[in-house]
Amino acid sequence: MPAPIPPPAPFSATRARFEAGTLIPREHLEACLATIAAREPVVRAFTVVDREGARRAADASAARWRAGAPASPIDGMPVGLKDNIETADLPTTYGSAAFAGWCGGRDAAAVHALRRAGAVIVGKAVTTEFADVHPGPTTNPHDPRRTPGGSSSGSAAMVAAGMVPVALGTQVGGSILRPASFCGVVGFKPTVGALHRGGIGDQFSQNCLGTLSATLEDGWAVCHEIARRVGGDPGSRPFAGGAQPAPPQRPGTLALLETDGWTMAEPGARQALESLLERLRRAGTTVIDRHGSKRVARLEAAIAGAAEQSLAINDYEKAWPLGEIDSRLGALISPGMRERIARGAAMSADDYVALLGARDAACEALHALAGEVDACITLSAPGPAPLGLQWTGQSAFNVPASYLRCPALSLPLLQVDGLPLGVQLLGFAHHERALSAVAGWVAGV
Amino acid sequence: MPAPIPPPAPFSATRARFEAGTLIPREHLEACLATIAAREPVVRAFTVVDREGARRAADASAARWRAGAPASPIDGMPVGLKDNIETADLPTTYGSAAFAGWCGGRDAAAVHALRRAGAVIVGKAVTTEFADVHPGPTTNPHDPRRTPGGSSSGSAAMVAAGMVPVALGTQVGGSILRPASFCGVVGFKPTVGALHRGGIGDQFSQNCLGTLSATLEDGWAVCHEIARRVGGDPGSRPFAGGAQPAPPQRPGTLALLETDGWTMAEPGARQALESLLERLRRAGTTVIDRHGSKRVARLEAAIAGAAEQSLAINDYEKAWPLGEIDSRLGALISPGMRERIARGAAMSADDYVALLGARDAACEALHALAGEVDACITLSAPGPAPLGLQWTGQSAFNVPASYLRCPALSLPLLQVDGLPLGVQLLGFAHHERALSAVAGWVAGV
Repeated sequence: MPAPIPPPAPFSATRARFEAGTLIPREHLEACLATIAAREPVVRAFTVVDREGARRAADASAARWRAGAPASPIDGMPVGLKDNIETADLPTTYGSAAFAGWCGGRDAAAVHALRRAGAVIVGKAVTTEFADVHPGPTTNPHDPRRTPGGSSSGSAAMVAAGMVPVALGTQVGGSILRPASFCGVVGFKPTVGALHRGGIGDQFSQNCLGTLSATLEDGWAVCHEIARRVGGDPGSRPFAGGAQPAPPQRPGTLALLETDGWTMAEPGARQALESLLERLRRAGTTVIDRHGSKRVARLEAAIAGAAEQSLAINDYEKAWPLGEIDSRLGALISPGMRERIARGAAMSADDYVALLGARDAACEALHALAGEVDACITLSAPGPAPLGLQWTGQSAFNVPASYLRCPALSLPLLQVDGLPLGVQLLGFAHHERALSAVAGWVAGV
Repeated sequence: MPAPIPPPAPFSATRARFEAGTLIPREHLEACLATIAAREPVVRAFTVVDREGARRAADASAARWRAGAPASPIDGMPVGLKDNIETADLPTTYGSAAFAGWCGGRDAAAVHALRRAGAVIVGKAVTTEFADVHPGPTTNPHDPRRTPGGSSSGSAAMVAAGMVPVALGTQVGGSILRPASFCGVVGFKPTVGALHRGGIGDQFSQNCLGTLSATLEDGWAVCHEIARRVGGDPGSRPFAGGAQPAPPQRPGTLALLETDGWTMAEPGARQALESLLERLRRAGTTVIDRHGSKRVARLEAAIAGAAEQSLAINDYEKAWPLGEIDSRLGALISPGMRERIARGAAMSADDYVALLGARDAACEALHALAGEVDACITLSAPGPAPLGLQWTGQSAFNVPASYLRCPALSLPLLQVDGLPLGVQLLGFAHHERALSAVAGWVAGV
C-alpha cells in the first residue's frame, strides 16, 4: 500500500490567498496540473484534461481578482466534471463506446453557471458506462488495487488525489456517496431537482447532481453558485442552503438508519460507526433507531427493498434516451445495460406508477420524522473500498437517500484497516442548511 | 377569401382501408405529398419535407400491413413534427437562426416512440422562434392573410390543409390550443408530464407535448402510442387515456370559465359560445359559472393574471438552455427574446418559488371543482384568426390550461364570419379519459 495521501487543501484557504494577492489562479491551476501529471498515470481519473482551456480560464480569473472584481467566491476554483455532463468545448462520452469523441456543442446548465461564476473547468471525470455499473479505468488513490467506487469514479478520485478541490458528480443509486466514502472525500447531493439537471445525460427521476469535494464548504459553494445562476430543474425549488454551510449545531436527536446495508457491513465498519455514535451520545445527542422508535421502524420498512424498487424505476425510465441510443448504437452498449433496457421496455405503465406510489410513501415516512429528529445517520458503505476494479462496490447504504430523493452527505470521518470510510447523513427535502449544521457538528465531535 | 377547405380525412378511416388492403400506406403518403405540393407554396407549414425518408417508412409500413402484422394502430400514419422536437435524420431549428441546419443526431422520446409504432415522419413543422412569439412564415390555410396562430403554427396549418392527419405540437402558453382554434383542427394537450418531453428543446415547467389533428381519435391514438413506448417524463404518471377516446357521455355539470379572455372576446365569438351552451343546457347539462358558484369564482380568481405569472415563471426558466444559447449565439437571437432572458436572469429564486406556490394554489382551486363539475368549458380564442402574420394572436383563453398544467382540448365546433373558432374543454390532471367522454358528447350536440 502506498503512503497515506495528504488531505487536499480546501479551496477556502486558496481563495483567501487569491484575495490577498499571495497566490494567483494560474499558479494554483499549475499546481493542480502538476499533481495531475504526477498521479494521473496510476489514478486515471480523467477522460480528458483541458490544460489550455483551463489556463485561459485561470488567466481570466486572475485578471478579475487583480481588478478586485471576482465573478463569485469560487472564481478561479479548479473543477472537474463527471463525463455525463455536457461541455460545449470538450467531448462527453458517458463512459460509453457509443459516445466516443461525441460533443453536443453546448454546456450543461451547471457548467454554464460554473463558467459564469469564474470556475476553471480542468477536465472531464471518468464515469461508469452511462453512470451505471460497467466500470471505467479509474483506481482508488488510497490503493490502486481497489475500486474508487462508482459511478462518479473519476470525480471522487481526482479530489482525493488532490488534483482538484471539487468535482461534479451525479447519483441515481449510490453514485456520489459511495465513491466519496471509498476515496475519503466529502460527497454531497442536495434534494433531487434542486440543482438544474439540464444537459446531463441520465434524467432518471432519482438522479441528482452533486459534488465530491475536499471539504463540505467547497462543494457547498459550488452548489450555491449553480443554483444562483440556473436554479433547479424547471418547476422545482432551487437549492437554498446559503453561500456557506450553516454553523455547526448539536442535533437533539439523530435516527440511526440500518438500511438493507447493515447486515452486509463489515464488523470493523459497524464498530467504527458505533464508536462515533457513542461519542455523539456523550456529547448530548440522543440517537434513536428502529428498535426504539415506531416512526424509524416505519421508515426502515419503507426503504427495505429500495435497491430493487429503484432499479425497476430506473429500468422503466431507460426508455429514453437509453432506448433510443440502443436502437441506433446497440452494438456499442454492454450486454448488461441492453438487458436492463429490455427489462424496462417490458414493464407496464401501471407497474411504474405503482413503484412511484411506493417511493412517495417512503418519502412520507421520512418526512414524518421531521418533527422528531434532526437528521438520519448511517454508514456510507459496508466497509472500505473492496479490492478489484471490476465491481464498484455495494450500494445498499446509498440507495435509500436516492430513493427518498432527500439531501445527503458522506463525511470522511471513519477509517477501517487504514482506509477511509464515510459517515452518511440524510436530511429532509429542501432543508440542506439544517443538514449542514448537523454535519459540521458531527465532523467536530 | 379562398373557397372553404374540405375537412381532412380522419386516419381511422384510412387505417380501415389499410386493413382491408384497399389502400396501401405508400399510396396514402403520396396523396399527402400531392396535397403538400399543391398547398405548401402558400401555407408554408414545413421547414423540411422528408419525401424519401417518408417513402421508405411508408413502404416498410406497407410490408407490415401486407403481412397482417402492423406495429400499432397508427402504423403508416403520416405525421408532422413541430420543429422543436429533435430528429436523428432531419435538422431541428427551433425557429431560430441560431439553429439553422442544426441536427442533434438523436430522436426525441416521442419521435422514437412514433417510429417504433410505424408512423411515417413526413417532415418538420414551422414554429415561432424557440416556440415563443417571434413568428415564422406559415399562413392560415383558411385565409393566407391571417396568422395560423403559434407557436405550433406549422403543425396546425399542415393538418388543416390536409397535408397530414396529425402533427405534434407543444404548449407553454397557448401554443397548441390557439393554432388549433385558428386553423379549425382539434388541439389536445394531456396533463403536463404525461408524455415524455425528452429531446424537446423547451423544458419549461408548464410545457406540454400534444397533438394537432383532424379528429380527436387521431391525436388520441398518437398520444397513446407515445406513452405506451416511452411513458411520461421521468417520475410522472404516463398518459393513460386508453387507445381511443371514451364513448361520448353527457356531463352533468360544466363550469364556464370566463378567464382573462372574456372581456377581450369578440361579440360574435361570445355569441357562438353562448348558443352552444344553450344547446348543452337544453340537452340536460347544467352550466355553472363564477356568478353562481363560489368554487368557480375561486378558480377564476386564481387564474386571473395567469398570463403574467406564466411569463415570469417561463422567464426564470430561460436560464437554461436559452441563457446558454444566448451566451454563445446571442447575435442570432431576437431582441425581444434576449430581453426576456435578461429579465429571467434578474429574478431571484425566492420570486420564482413564490410564483410556483401561486401556481400550485391555482391547481388546487381547479382540483376543488372535481366533485362538482365534469369539465370546464370556454372559448379557445377571443375570435377567429386575426389578419396579419406578425402577431400569432391573443392567448388569454389558453394560458389558464397551461398554468393549471391540466389536460385540455380545442374542438373546431364554432364559426365566426366563416372562419373557424374552437371550443375549449379543460379537465382534471391525469383524467384525460373523462375529458374525452365530455368532448365526444359536446361535439355531437
